[in-house]
Amino acid sequence: MARYQIILAYDGTHLLGSQRQAGSRTAQGELEKALRKIGWTGKSVLLAGRTDSGTHASGQVAAFDLDWSHGTDPLRDALNANLPDDLAVRSVCLAGDDFHPRFDASSRRYRYRLFCAGVRDPLRERYAWRVWPEVTGLAALADLWLGTHDFDAFGSATTKSGNTIRTVFAASWQDREGEWTFEISADAFLYRMVRRLVYVQAAVGQGRVPAQVVAAALDDRPQVREQARAQIPAGLAPASGLTLVDVRYDNLT
Amino acid sequence: MARYQIILAYDGTHLLGSQRQAGSRTAQGELEKALRKIGWTGKSVLLAGRTDSGTHASGQVAAFDLDWSHGTDPLRDALNANLPDDLAVRSVCLAGDDFHPRFDASSRRYRYRLFCAGVRDPLRERYAWRVWPEVTGLAALADLWLGTHDFDAFGSATTKSGNTIRTVFAASWQDREGEWTFEISADAFLYRMVRRLVYVQAAVGQGRVPAQVVAAALDDRPQVREQARAQIPAGLAPASGLTLVDVRYDNLT
Repeated sequence: MARYQIILAYDGTHLLGSQRQAGSRTAQGELEKALRKIGWTGKSVLLAGRTDSGTHASGQVAAFDLDWSHGTDPLRDALNANLPDDLAVRSVCLAGDDFHPRFDASSRRYRYRLFCAGVRDPLRERYAWRVWPEVTGLAALADLWLGTHDFDAFGSATTKSGNTIRTVFAASWQDREGEWTFEISADAFLYRMVRRLVYVQAAVGQGRVPAQVVAAALDDRPQVREQARAQIPAGLAPASGLTLVDVRYDNLT
Repeated sequence: MARYQIILAYDGTHLLGSQRQAGSRTAQGELEKALRKIGWTGKSVLLAGRTDSGTHASGQVAAFDLDWSHGTDPLRDALNANLPDDLAVRSVCLAGDDFHPRFDASSRRYRYRLFCAGVRDPLRERYAWRVWPEVTGLAALADLWLGTHDFDAFGSATTKSGNTIRTVFAASWQDREGEWTFEISADAFLYRMVRRLVYVQAAVGQGRVPAQVVAAALDDRPQVREQARAQIPAGLAPASGLTLVDVRYDNLT
């Protein structure tokens, strides 16, 4: 018996998120089903990041204990042969016995794609948010998020402790042929935080809220944050534009 | 009553091609259904290009006669409100009474995307062909197709006349972050010709057939073509990598 760490990719369109839920297709549920077909008898796999219903992943990380004597590439291929088309194991490696993909992660990186168009576009909307009226000036907004802030205006805590302080290591917007890509990495994210950040930036880019108000919503003083928060339109960017790209374990060898 | 020309986009994954077929979802069938909901009583819409089951379009052209007094943008919006998510009308304009999207077309442009990877990739395979082992040197092959040739080794005629001579105006391969895009425009294409050309180029790029053999399969002499053709592996690139991008009407004002 050994612990394996895998990188898992999925098209989230027809998944009800990452976490197992009885009676629903989820990333965890589909992975566990494939594992059982190759002899796994565990109770639960471990996942690095929680993704919403409809959100995609190219670099989700999972771990499980398995008796397997055929090597890591054959394990990858055996899992892929048993997974449905919308999920695939990208790679497999051996991990330490106590490796935990969520608790051991030092950072996560998400990517969000959007494009501006007044008319539906069936070939792009599966993986990107169509925004209209046009947004401008997104590139200048990415720096707003850098550093350590209390993000309570941009999501809710994922643990009972209620800690909403997070550290954003990098954030950027790139414009390529009319499609905008937002990338952000942080030690961790609040529940629905990336979709909220994208929605708020789109609102700024459409002139619906000033960038200064968004900056104030990250102020150190709770009352300043609260005042600013009330001026920001409610809403979330759709899950379909979001992809969990990468999880890092810099503390491990 | 006036004739309208529209640009139609669709994700072909769940369409059985472009042409209407009783009991199946097709681009033509879905468009006609949406038209009927806004009062169209015609028998059949006209389409510029035939696309296979699973092939996409960002620039299919269709035409139909309709009594409509609210302008072209409202017509576009009315159709989009009645089309399912995997089809959309990109634009609408008025056409001459005798405009025919297929007979009047001066050129068509297709795009084919592929990427090289040994492992499945659920976020890319909806719109691109995963090829393995790796292909190299594709960029040098595009020029092979330029000009007027008898393409009988690369497809079958679409009309009873059996004419297999076509003129390729432009062809190119572009490599972007490991994804290869083939673009080709011609006066017209044989049945499944683009998928065949891509398959053959991938075979050359994998070292399974020499480029000279492919060049010989375009020779002016029928017996040279036939000999060469016998040395080229049979097969088609999957429909999912192919998109009809553009149809041109250079002869019209």
